[in-house]
Amino acid sequence: MSRSTTASLMAARAALTEVRPLVHCLTNTVVQAFTANALLAVGASPAMVDAPEEAAEFAGLASAVLVNVGTLNARTAEAMRAAAARAADDAKPWVLDPVAVGALGFRTRLAAELLDHRPDVVRGNASEVIALAGAGAGGRGTDSTAGVDSAAAAATDLARRTGGVVAVSGEVDLFTDGERTLRVGGGHVLLTRTTGAGCALGALTAAYVAATGSGLWGAVAAHAHTARAAERAAAVCGGPGSFATAWLDALDAIGPDELADADVRDQA
Amino acid sequence: MSRSTTASLMAARAALTEVRPLVHCLTNTVVQAFTANALLAVGASPAMVDAPEEAAEFAGLASAVLVNVGTLNARTAEAMRAAAARAADDAKPWVLDPVAVGALGFRTRLAAELLDHRPDVVRGNASEVIALAGAGAGGRGTDSTAGVDSAAAAATDLARRTGGVVAVSGEVDLFTDGERTLRVGGGHVLLTRTTGAGCALGALTAAYVAATGSGLWGAVAAHAHTARAAERAAAVCGGPGSFATAWLDALDAIGPDELADADVRDQA
Amino acid sequence: MSRSTTASLMAARAALTEVRPLVHCLTNTVVQAFTANALLAVGASPAMVDAPEEAAEFAGLASAVLVNVGTLNARTAEAMRAAAARAADDAKPWVLDPVAVGALGFRTRLAAELLDHRPDVVRGNASEVIALAGAGAGGRGTDSTAGVDSAAAAATDLARRTGGVVAVSGEVDLFTDGERTLRVGGGHVLLTRTTGAGCALGALTAAYVAATGSGLWGAVAAHAHTARAAERAAAVCGGPGSFATAWLDALDAIGPDELADADVRDQA
Repeated sequence: MSRSTTASLMAARAALTEVRPLVHCLTNTVVQAFTANALLAVGASPAMVDAPEEAAEFAGLASAVLVNVGTLNARTAEAMRAAAARAADDAKPWVLDPVAVGALGFRTRLAAELLDHRPDVVRGNASEVIALAGAGAGGRGTDSTAGVDSAAAAATDLARRTGGVVAVSGEVDLFTDGERTLRVGGGHVLLTRTTGAGCALGALTAAYVAATGSGLWGAVAAHAHTARAAERAAAVCGGPGSFATAWLDALDAIGPDELADADVRDQA
Repeated sequence: MSRSTTASLMAARAALTEVRPLVHCLTNTVVQAFTANALLAVGASPAMVDAPEEAAEFAGLASAVLVNVGTLNARTAEAMRAAAARAADDAKPWVLDPVAVGALGFRTRLAAELLDHRPDVVRGNASEVIALAGAGAGGRGTDSTAGVDSAAAAATDLARRTGGVVAVSGEVDLFTDGERTLRVGGGHVLLTRTTGAGCALGALTAAYVAATGSGLWGAVAAHAHTARAAERAAAVCGGPGSFATAWLDALDAIGPDELADADVRDQA
Repeated sequence: MSRSTTASLMAARAALTEVRPLVHCLTNTVVQAFTANALLAVGASPAMVDAPEEAAEFAGLASAVLVNVGTLNARTAEAMRAAAARAADDAKPWVLDPVAVGALGFRTRLAAELLDHRPDVVRGNASEVIALAGAGAGGRGTDSTAGVDSAAAAATDLARRTGGVVAVSGEVDLFTDGERTLRVGGGHVLLTRTTGAGCALGALTAAYVAATGSGLWGAVAAHAHTARAAERAAAVCGGPGSFATAWLDALDAIGPDELADADVRDQA
């Protein structure tokens, strides 16, 4: 990792503690609690307002907005449209997590429509990013059936269309702003056996982007923080249940120095 | 326990690991996360799609469907109808968990209506099974006011009507396909002080039925797995909070050999 | 703490164990599971029915009702109106938790309307209580931007209007029935980094009010129990994740004697 990458990660962690961003999460009901606890663990502040009557109003108060379509319905779709539009109008960072896009028509159409509000970061697995970029279809619920590298071209294409960043989460995460590409390794397989770990990562990305003002470094820092915390948690846990608890403890414990040890790979 | 019962349990556990069924859960919002984590802990894959626009489509992709009416509303009722109909059309296993049926009119009517789609397994407590069979009314939220054996006749009647299996969860669980009756003992009282343990059991039943192709052995294996994991967790926990975490760890840890030690009682 | 205060706390804890109240929670989807587990940990029984078709019917079966507007939407607003009206008609205790009232118009109007059903306890932070009393606006999601003592006059005013009790949660909690004022100290800052700790406190308040028949002592006992459990949990946890688990264990472990050691301050 280059010295400037190290400095960017350390600065991102410090900024998160300093700014304590309020992240407005329109996310699926499965992961709301875990997402909120992950945000609190890193020092951010969560709020889960998801009614059409309140979504735009609250987006106006928040530091950043997360839209995750995991348990989408007609009501929350309306709230997501309103919050994303408000974030775009206010030039406030927002993150789109296209859960299971490609596998289901209703959410695929909504996610495609939300791209018009130009998310600062799209965070998904390879199948979802490929599907959202229109380059294919697929997926199996929240599991990716494609490898991260297979989504590289789709991610670059999508980033160029939105003018933002695309983060492809997987064994080694891939990040692109349409020009530059970075990767984050490390982490632990138990993350994939913890409901909401990926969804919480979307929220941490929103928090880091708000704190740093950078889509690319915000996304990289969030993934690096997640990966380092997973390594710590895996070392002390007794299975998938205690891993989730230990991961929250580790998110809290990891400061700038430890984040700087993450496996972040600059483009060759 | 007979040698064939032991073999059936061991084969069920191995099949679950091998098949890794994708369980489509239309379940209450209280227990979605815990249910998903329980499924992941045993090696299955969860998805919680509950919009009418997506429910039938996703049921078509899943290995099995769970319908749990715990926090029913008009929207999710519509999604449940669509998913159960699709499962029936596709001859795909589905499980009905009639939470608080008998205590509340709206859900009692829906659960009765869903019986037309012939669930492979109905899993409930004694009060719920009795109410669903039309043999009485009662219950107190999610607590049963009746003992398991008091529901034996209702369970047999209900199983004969659906052509499936009825599982009555309690201190000793009872299972019937209308002809044969089995029982599973063991477990721990802390299961009753953990929100969503019973609901997660419904999802594990769906996973095991998908993996084994048997309503009866799927239900028995899920309950035996739950009971063994509870015994393990109770031995190491410090109260109801750490019990829930330890139970997830134990679900993961229990393999075929340990499952074969469960207290499964064949019909005399 | 006076001898009578000690006796009241001890009696409240014993009554909770004895009565085992069934608390009907119309609460936000983020905290449903944690709230249910907190109620189970202290020996109460939770149920989260939130459909308009069922809310009044279930309120009629419950020992107490909690209305928490955290993730309000049009459907749950209707259910809350029905449940609060039923509780008032049945002279059954109910608690209003005005999450983020003052920050968002839709919920502020609903909470003001629900005051007509005269909640036995309003439990909120200082910003929310001030906003609900009509004495100001503010707040930042679920965080209070005002100190507890700044809400003392608003709390007294609000208590006199409802004829009930107002509990202002903060570093030192404040309780008033419009005449008498009590305070509860202790607790731990990790409570503020645990999603749903405040919301669970609203549910515990409902349980204690049902068990004791007293709005004032019910609210004080719930806050004292929460604070003592937080102190215990903080002493053994490794961060915010394990704190939440340890807090549930501690809620269960604390009996009358330990509750009597809480930092409850009678009015000077």
